Amino acid sequence: MFTLYYAPGTCALASHIALEQAGADYQAVRVDFSSNQQQSPHFLSVNPKGRVPALVTSRGVLTETPAILQFICQTFPKAGLAPLDDVFELARMNAFNSYLCSTVHIAHAHGRRGYRWADDPVAIAAMQKKVPQTMSECFSLIESEYFQGPWVLGEHYTVSDMYLFTIAQWLEGDGVDAEKFPNVAEHRRRMAALPVVSQVLAAQRQPA
Amino acid sequence: MFTLYYAPGTCALASHIALEQAGADYQAVRVDFSSNQQQSPHFLSVNPKGRVPALVTSRGVLTETPAILQFICQTFPKAGLAPLDDVFELARMNAFNSYLCSTVHIAHAHGRRGYRWADDPVAIAAMQKKVPQTMSECFSLIESEYFQGPWVLGEHYTVSDMYLFTIAQWLEGDGVDAEKFPNVAEHRRRMAALPVVSQVLAAQRQPA
Repeated sequence: MFTLYYAPGTCALASHIALEQAGADYQAVRVDFSSNQQQSPHFLSVNPKGRVPALVTSRGVLTETPAILQFICQTFPKAGLAPLDDVFELARMNAFNSYLCSTVHIAHAHGRRGYRWADDPVAIAAMQKKVPQTMSECFSLIESEYFQGPWVLGEHYTVSDMYLFTIAQWLEGDGVDAEKFPNVAEHRRRMAALPVVSQVLAAQRQPA
Repeated sequence: MFTLYYAPGTCALASHIALEQAGADYQAVRVDFSSNQQQSPHFLSVNPKGRVPALVTSRGVLTETPAILQFICQTFPKAGLAPLDDVFELARMNAFNSYLCSTVHIAHAHGRRGYRWADDPVAIAAMQKKVPQTMSECFSLIESEYFQGPWVLGEHYTVSDMYLFTIAQWLEGDGVDAEKFPNVAEHRRRMAALPVVSQVLAAQRQPA
């Protein structure tokens, strides 16, 4: 039995979909960002970073989306959500996930959480202003170089699809027209139509 | 035979040490950042992101430090550089590496490459100003929560040690006194004394 701490609209969606898709026995616990619950003593005792996702396992707490995603794939190998038997392909998957985590998510975060990197309101406004450009550059690279089709890594549906879907959900809010990236946009529609994805999105919309 | 593209002083050091430690057959090729060689047509054909590290393998190019590190560990399992047989411990390693990649390295990058996230010189200066604080907060968390001792993950030396060493090298340049974090500082000295580490640092100092 796992416990996933999440907040709606965050990158925790990828881990949530992966748990559901893998058929894991889990509960999802919402962290209320509107009341800053991620900084509460209780939540900080779960995850001292004060962030979601955090996955509580019988052996301890895991954080960081790329690590949680591979953990779910390896814990439920029959679900076939990663190329576990191919060291190179697995590295390609992790490189994609790491790019989402360390470049694309970070580009997005400058629109909402610029205070992490500067105190001056002028600087925070300047960061917000650049988000449409940086997010467009990231998705141009994904569209032209990394999205293989029909799934992110090619013929096989993996956790990278869940993670790309999660971050692609943010494009309009970041001032970017997703239709500029036809492969990503079509992938996003296809992902949204999967029963497992609509089920998780509906669960995240339920009152806490 | 692998080819590692690196630049001195960058996070590519971690992959370089891992290749050497694993006994891999590889060549290291320097990318000259002073002449902006990372944006040259040749290098962009290797890595369209225009970043190092990039690891050329017989099956294609891998990028992103956490992905490259696990790839090296899995390709050379006898080197014992990761807990490959323990899904939870491997996830803990990847969570640590992902934190370095997506939070600590990003905090550092705001001191040198703020132009990635804002165009206004006032904003770039404000980002630089906050780097000592953000890097201190990251290393406080590593010191208090994540560094197990004697190695990052506990009893076993892994690629997380190489990656932590790499980023800890940046502390003074970021205006942070490494001695505020006694476990990290002692680990850094111990890592610097390893023959494999001094050998790689010496190789990176050679004229290109």
